[in-house]
Amino acid sequence: MQSFDYFNPTHIVFGQDRLAELDKLVPQNAKVLVLYGGGSVKKFGTLDKVLNGLGQREVIEFGGIEPNPQFDTLMRAVELVRKENIDFLLAVGGGSVMDGTKFVSAAAPYEGSEESLLQHGFSPLPIEKAVPLATVATLPATGSEMNMGAVISYQGGKFPVMSPMLFPKFSFLDPTLTFSLPKVQVANGVVDAFVHILEQYVTFPVNASVQDRTAEGLLKTLIETGPVTLAEPENYDARATLVWSATWALNGFIGAGVPQDWSTHMIGHELTALFGIDHAQSLAIIQPSLWALRKDKKRAKLLQYAERVWDITEGDEEERIERAISKTRAFFESLGVKTRLSEYGVKREQVSDVINALEAHGMVAMSETGDLTLETSRQILEHSYA
Amino acid sequence: MQSFDYFNPTHIVFGQDRLAELDKLVPQNAKVLVLYGGGSVKKFGTLDKVLNGLGQREVIEFGGIEPNPQFDTLMRAVELVRKENIDFLLAVGGGSVMDGTKFVSAAAPYEGSEESLLQHGFSPLPIEKAVPLATVATLPATGSEMNMGAVISYQGGKFPVMSPMLFPKFSFLDPTLTFSLPKVQVANGVVDAFVHILEQYVTFPVNASVQDRTAEGLLKTLIETGPVTLAEPENYDARATLVWSATWALNGFIGAGVPQDWSTHMIGHELTALFGIDHAQSLAIIQPSLWALRKDKKRAKLLQYAERVWDITEGDEEERIERAISKTRAFFESLGVKTRLSEYGVKREQVSDVINALEAHGMVAMSETGDLTLETSRQILEHSYA
Repeated sequence: MQSFDYFNPTHIVFGQDRLAELDKLVPQNAKVLVLYGGGSVKKFGTLDKVLNGLGQREVIEFGGIEPNPQFDTLMRAVELVRKENIDFLLAVGGGSVMDGTKFVSAAAPYEGSEESLLQHGFSPLPIEKAVPLATVATLPATGSEMNMGAVISYQGGKFPVMSPMLFPKFSFLDPTLTFSLPKVQVANGVVDAFVHILEQYVTFPVNASVQDRTAEGLLKTLIETGPVTLAEPENYDARATLVWSATWALNGFIGAGVPQDWSTHMIGHELTALFGIDHAQSLAIIQPSLWALRKDKKRAKLLQYAERVWDITEGDEEERIERAISKTRAFFESLGVKTRLSEYGVKREQVSDVINALEAHGMVAMSETGDLTLETSRQILEHSYA
Repeated sequence: MQSFDYFNPTHIVFGQDRLAELDKLVPQNAKVLVLYGGGSVKKFGTLDKVLNGLGQREVIEFGGIEPNPQFDTLMRAVELVRKENIDFLLAVGGGSVMDGTKFVSAAAPYEGSEESLLQHGFSPLPIEKAVPLATVATLPATGSEMNMGAVISYQGGKFPVMSPMLFPKFSFLDPTLTFSLPKVQVANGVVDAFVHILEQYVTFPVNASVQDRTAEGLLKTLIETGPVTLAEPENYDARATLVWSATWALNGFIGAGVPQDWSTHMIGHELTALFGIDHAQSLAIIQPSLWALRKDKKRAKLLQYAERVWDITEGDEEERIERAISKTRAFFESLGVKTRLSEYGVKREQVSDVINALEAHGMVAMSETGDLTLETSRQILEHSYA
């Protein structure tokens, strides 16, 4: 096991119909900015329940945060926070709203250039304060409700933003708030959580049994519960299991003390930025092809994944790895998430655009071993047409 | 899944030779009380490394906290904290030292009767402040390094003490600090962590797959790593895995949203208080016999445990449950921890003393279903002679 720090102070409030408890969790005299996305939180009554839970506090709303939240949109919220002396941010929505709110939290008190906050990659932001934030999560997928990271879109790129000051103070996870989600978003959520786990698990072994067994348990849970919750959106236990799995897929625990990859995400980000492919779809395209190209680097963990997650024990190493890759691809497809770049209308000659974007963003030596080059990225993208 | 709150703000610093980092984690101007047990932290140099890490801060030491920390001992530390205006507590030791330090943290600023702090059971203490505390954990077992609970001994009883104000601010987990532990303490640690998981897992099913798969992963990890780390105390990865398993066995995650039992602990506490049997030994005595008596209440989870933890799939339900109980008992015995009350020199006629103590402490309707009576406790204790 590698050495690590683990810290996660977010208070989770899990269960049905608990939004009245906002009243005791939000500071009594706070002036609150409630941030959300499109109209669904209004349409399905979530926003009303939130406003009710906030009681007599002064509340301002900021709607319209888009999927892949844009810097320019968020800067309008930053101006509002400054002008209105907001002292508490409450994100009501999915990963984009939560991520966007984290950026607002960091940027509003920041005295330097806000664009510069996008240039720190996976290192902590150089900030000394942040507006306290919390979330009411309505989409199980990104884990943003219980981590310190966000991804912000700016001028055709997607940029990670990290700081321990950006952990939500609390997050409400009410599975019933997700019952009204379109099927495609639920399927995307399952794939997103699944690949979050893979990025921290299918690397190279370091004798970290606690992390590995937990990762395998979460993967098996998603394989089991994904199809159920897609078919039965109002099955409470299945949806609750998806929600809680997605949170633990990316809250720091399974990644502590083990190598991490994240190159599927980095390549996927360019597909989203260039072609508007949904984040989870981009991961479903890249992950199986990345493994096909990198199976020697990941051999031991791919074999472990084959056996412990998919119960594949027959055949030689190559066969077992191939079967594990096929099973993964078939799982994504079974949820309705296509795994071939060609199926998203991207032409072969556009692969060069992706490579150029990766190069422009410095993604030239990625992965847990730091040796995934632009040439390998090109091969992965081309393989995804096969 | 049941509704729940999950909150755990302890910062874990995991790895070898990191005690110099104390300097950046303890407040710069803090006056620190370092608490420890017997002489082993001096003998093996841990205390020196800690004092070194604390740099120029004013430090006072308080040694002599015994296994099953006594109220009277801890009150001497409370007086010291008050007299010396201590504003940071650093526990260096195992569960008893960490638990005792938590009590000192709560009691020192408390203006009411300190004895009354022992009367709140599993409910949060009615405290408004606590002296900030942190730990350098030297014994993997109790999970105290990352939870808000403690057990304090007082006048022949053992009393739980809980408060979210008692989470350590940070805990150093350096597996090498545990290399010098006597074998019996390592074996006890494995059993203690194992039973912590069982108390939160072998109850009744509530469709909580994330919690169940994680519990099963931790149990399988302990089964695998326990004998290795006992035989090879300086095998870093095995010991690191034990340390991290013990922490997650009782830090709130696997118990969130599921029923919990804890009657093995409650009966075991009386065995420790009356006969001086080590805490883990008391659990090893009670757990298999409790299952034998309560297998109908726990049928579904015992069958799940049999299959998913011990790979027992052959035979009818009774046979599978019996085999799972036998396997558990044999696992404890294989670590050198005896599982029969008779083997600890307790006579059959002394069972009544245990029952009287349980009654005096109000332990008359225990377990996840609230129906484990004194009569059942008596049967469990008598069964443990079989």
